[in-house]
Amino acid sequence: MFILTEKNQTAAVRQALRQRLKDTGVTVAHPGGEVLVLEGETFRLDGESLRLLPGVRAVQRLTKPYPLAARTGHPEDTVVSVGKARIGQDFCLIAGPCAVESSEQVTSIARQVSAAGAQLLRGGAFKPRTSPYTFGGLGAEGLELLCRAGRETGLPVVSEITDPRQLSLFREVDVLQVGARNMQNFELLRELGRQEKPVLLKRSFGATVTELLQAAEYILAGGNERVILCERGIRTFETDSRATLDVAGIAALKEQSHLPVLADPSHAAGRRGLVAPLALAAAAAGADGLMIEVHDRPEEALSDGRQALTCGEFARLARRVQALTALLRQEE
Amino acid sequence: MFILTEKNQTAAVRQALRQRLKDTGVTVAHPGGEVLVLEGETFRLDGESLRLLPGVRAVQRLTKPYPLAARTGHPEDTVVSVGKARIGQDFCLIAGPCAVESSEQVTSIARQVSAAGAQLLRGGAFKPRTSPYTFGGLGAEGLELLCRAGRETGLPVVSEITDPRQLSLFREVDVLQVGARNMQNFELLRELGRQEKPVLLKRSFGATVTELLQAAEYILAGGNERVILCERGIRTFETDSRATLDVAGIAALKEQSHLPVLADPSHAAGRRGLVAPLALAAAAAGADGLMIEVHDRPEEALSDGRQALTCGEFARLARRVQALTALLRQEE
Amino acid sequence: MFILTEKNQTAAVRQALRQRLKDTGVTVAHPGGEVLVLEGETFRLDGESLRLLPGVRAVQRLTKPYPLAARTGHPEDTVVSVGKARIGQDFCLIAGPCAVESSEQVTSIARQVSAAGAQLLRGGAFKPRTSPYTFGGLGAEGLELLCRAGRETGLPVVSEITDPRQLSLFREVDVLQVGARNMQNFELLRELGRQEKPVLLKRSFGATVTELLQAAEYILAGGNERVILCERGIRTFETDSRATLDVAGIAALKEQSHLPVLADPSHAAGRRGLVAPLALAAAAAGADGLMIEVHDRPEEALSDGRQALTCGEFARLARRVQALTALLRQEE
Amino acid sequence: MFILTEKNQTAAVRQALRQRLKDTGVTVAHPGGEVLVLEGETFRLDGESLRLLPGVRAVQRLTKPYPLAARTGHPEDTVVSVGKARIGQDFCLIAGPCAVESSEQVTSIARQVSAAGAQLLRGGAFKPRTSPYTFGGLGAEGLELLCRAGRETGLPVVSEITDPRQLSLFREVDVLQVGARNMQNFELLRELGRQEKPVLLKRSFGATVTELLQAAEYILAGGNERVILCERGIRTFETDSRATLDVAGIAALKEQSHLPVLADPSHAAGRRGLVAPLALAAAAAGADGLMIEVHDRPEEALSDGRQALTCGEFARLARRVQALTALLRQEE
Repeated sequence: MFILTEKNQTAAVRQALRQRLKDTGVTVAHPGGEVLVLEGETFRLDGESLRLLPGVRAVQRLTKPYPLAARTGHPEDTVVSVGKARIGQDFCLIAGPCAVESSEQVTSIARQVSAAGAQLLRGGAFKPRTSPYTFGGLGAEGLELLCRAGRETGLPVVSEITDPRQLSLFREVDVLQVGARNMQNFELLRELGRQEKPVLLKRSFGATVTELLQAAEYILAGGNERVILCERGIRTFETDSRATLDVAGIAALKEQSHLPVLADPSHAAGRRGLVAPLALAAAAAGADGLMIEVHDRPEEALSDGRQALTCGEFARLARRVQALTALLRQEE
Repeated sequence: MFILTEKNQTAAVRQALRQRLKDTGVTVAHPGGEVLVLEGETFRLDGESLRLLPGVRAVQRLTKPYPLAARTGHPEDTVVSVGKARIGQDFCLIAGPCAVESSEQVTSIARQVSAAGAQLLRGGAFKPRTSPYTFGGLGAEGLELLCRAGRETGLPVVSEITDPRQLSLFREVDVLQVGARNMQNFELLRELGRQEKPVLLKRSFGATVTELLQAAEYILAGGNERVILCERGIRTFETDSRATLDVAGIAALKEQSHLPVLADPSHAAGRRGLVAPLALAAAAAGADGLMIEVHDRPEEALSDGRQALTCGEFARLARRVQALTALLRQEE
Repeated sequence: MFILTEKNQTAAVRQALRQRLKDTGVTVAHPGGEVLVLEGETFRLDGESLRLLPGVRAVQRLTKPYPLAARTGHPEDTVVSVGKARIGQDFCLIAGPCAVESSEQVTSIARQVSAAGAQLLRGGAFKPRTSPYTFGGLGAEGLELLCRAGRETGLPVVSEITDPRQLSLFREVDVLQVGARNMQNFELLRELGRQEKPVLLKRSFGATVTELLQAAEYILAGGNERVILCERGIRTFETDSRATLDVAGIAALKEQSHLPVLADPSHAAGRRGLVAPLALAAAAAGADGLMIEVHDRPEEALSDGRQALTCGEFARLARRVQALTALLRQEE
Repeated sequence: MFILTEKNQTAAVRQALRQRLKDTGVTVAHPGGEVLVLEGETFRLDGESLRLLPGVRAVQRLTKPYPLAARTGHPEDTVVSVGKARIGQDFCLIAGPCAVESSEQVTSIARQVSAAGAQLLRGGAFKPRTSPYTFGGLGAEGLELLCRAGRETGLPVVSEITDPRQLSLFREVDVLQVGARNMQNFELLRELGRQEKPVLLKRSFGATVTELLQAAEYILAGGNERVILCERGIRTFETDSRATLDVAGIAALKEQSHLPVLADPSHAAGRRGLVAPLALAAAAAGADGLMIEVHDRPEEALSDGRQALTCGEFARLARRVQALTALLRQEE
């Protein structure tokens, strides 16, 4: 981090500024002129606050504010193992219904996506819904149905947790998902930092890539190193798709961080016809895997049926995505 | 809500569609042609799911999906009384530090903003911070200092709650604030719907006006009618201000809902020089009040000092805003 | 502008970098350490290109890249005189129909807005329309009708020019307007830089405040100093209003530049009910005037009728805005 | 298009509304109840204006407002032939420098990109630059150098035109490019509608997919059917990449329109490291080709060097993209 100070400041201001900076615990070097160079744990500093200090003209950060998530200090890819999946190493497909609706539904879908190559089963039991009047999931019962379907098919399960008080209900769930709306629910993140289980952290549709990595940092700083990131589209002025999948964000996350990066083309698409192109694009941009909504009868889904693939569509997409990733890895 | 169906559908599809719609509990009228008109509790329906049903060509919602928050069924303004403030009726100023830092700091600021006309004292104790490494507030101790400063100056206090498990610590806090990052933390909203206290609900920087009203609906549906909305800027491509204050959103909220609407110009501005113009603009657009960050020594603030006004700047702004609202109310 | 260079570069790279920088015509100082400070006409440098040079670690611009538009070198407000209006000094109202439709229409509206206090008459003759199939204005005939209505009422006229080849048709038009879609039509801007007439330059809904000032710089650099800026809303994810009026942008433009700044609440609002709140908000944020669409029979307007005020609504708004600006100027 | 009218309107209002609609030239059917169905050339209607008519409650458009660009009436893909390229049929690579800088530069790059598989040569001579002070291209001389390099390598050339008055200078240019900033320069589009040459129309970073197709409609309606679309990233709150490449937009354009769709990953990326992932993602999402900036010595480029690939990087990317598209086409 370096600071350009005002040209004609008094000795008192200059002295006060340097003292104030030293008090934050960083090392302050003064190579000459109006420049100060800060070294050490500069991630603890708030650049915007520094800019306000008397005598400061400009501040520029040179290192990323997420030391644990950054690739700089951890060049090799983190691999999160769940069941047979090696997320971050082998390309990984997660599939299942938006919401668990019944035992038959989730088991039938689980069998079909497993046959098509999915390595994890997803299914929502606590669904954050924009409106309090639409179906919010089966809760604890939904989790139970999901875990049973997982056991029957041998697939580890992923489900979204929306409150630290639900933790005990998630005992048999293999991966704890944090949804886009809770990406900056820092109390939840802190609690997940104390867990042993992998956390799948989805990017908020209103957050930057840097903010996603800072949210991951909350979990990592708590001691849980098994964090999986997931890009699911950001909110823009374009309303044709439900959100704008940020494929550059996928590439930037892989570049800046050692953590595995998935993509969720279903929520970004918002309608079935766009799911396959977005899935292929995310894989081509370097995603380590995909999380896709699949339903056996989308037109009867209790939530988000519009964006769910049928089991047959998923199987076809899985084949294409796997061929594509095989090609790109061999070409590298 | 009305639905345009496909032109050449079979009788079976037509029949199935009408049955499916009736099952949701709404009334289905068929005035003729390809049109179906749904009446009743259409806010329980998910328009996007309906569009997926076989035989459906287009869906159009005619009523707002937030029956309790909507002005339609509740034409008169809701007034939330806190201390001497009548929020929604008289113009209301809330002021105080971003974060409570010490007893001296918060008491000194409280005295000065009270003298300048503030009716409530704000101060953060649990601060959601983008980075886990920056100052996150004094927690329970901060709440205590805030409440003490409130008692000493006779000002009711507002502070942000970030987790339902903190509720017992907020016993003496008069207004529970939900921050932008938790606007769609639905578990928290549900819990606040069961409280007696007023809730100040800030708009997420990634949420639409409709979504803010749907978030309010969670609290109202729980039985707590004392909800105060707050616009604080949305995220756009413009980075000169920290967020883009949506003054049209303020006017739209007043038009669509009976709930009081405040604005927070400090977080939208992100730098001191923009706070006053945004405060005046929000008041001119029809806000029922303002929440403003004030610090006695902004350059020493532990968080967000860049956007805090000094006590003197606040006093001057308070005078201008009050003159402006007096004029506009008399001119109406 | 200052540059932080790589720590361990060879003498050859260091030498090449400094030579390359000097070749651009700026002065390069080396106060010590890894820092280089550039002075002189740094606005001619492209910061992004500099960052790519071998040996460069970071680049920070300290001065604005629009020397002629910046307030730094021109602290007093520019005042553009048109007829009796002193734009940039006295608050100014511009009103009229979106499009000139007939002699009766524009003359009738001109009389009424003049009586209500408007100082300039607006009216489109060459209308940039998103679709080639909707009404695009009366062209040369429309300009003639507009100018005649201006002469009859003593109001100077403003109309949008969309192509340099139209210039001869605008001989009697007092102010040349550049619309949002042409803000970066640099050939048009260059041509307008060679004219004597004032230019009203509207911000593109996709452009930043800095880019608007850089577009103004094209006109100023050509020798035409009579540039009036106009904020009209930017495009965001919020679709309730047609665009999001950036009131912070108005304040930032006044802060950064000496040029007059108007606001167009009509295009930002997109529906009548939001025009007055946005107009008042813009005035409160410090705009030097407003440009408002007025129609005598909005429901029959050939374009944008939804956002036009009736003449009576305009008269009432004009009174309120003038009272508000009088108050704020006296309070200052 | 259908219209829901107010429930309790007078016969006079109902009559006036139906007459007004018929006057627009469309057919008005009244299947019953409050619904009116409009058929015929509804693309000539402005939906927003209709909503304002007395008696209208809601308007819903059922067909796209770009009849010539829409796939509905033209199911087969349009193929634009230029030299040996069949754009819209075979995957197509366009490459070359951002700006033509010298004969040696453009010829050397042309040879290398040709050898690597590019089918067209790009190069800017009239560069729209945000600032009037940065390099704006060599103009007529640049075009000449570009065309010469094209002839020497047998590559047809593409270059950006920014003003109708430049047309005569573009006589030897094979494809006329409209840049993002001029996408809604309708006078330019109209002029290009009268040309015989293919037009490469780039999406504005502030425009929706629908608006891009409406801009294309201007050219098509003028009689020029050889329009090639190009997605190059939209402006969002994320600033890590220069723009957010809208891969869903690529898929949506292919779905909604018969026109060929290219992508420009260079401008979206804004830095070299992101170009390859974005190029692969665009191809995977279904783009018909790519336009990529290549420079022999990017660090010396006079504009946009940061985002240019070296010739070697381009050759490697070309191989990967071609293998990917071959795979996806065979898998289809």
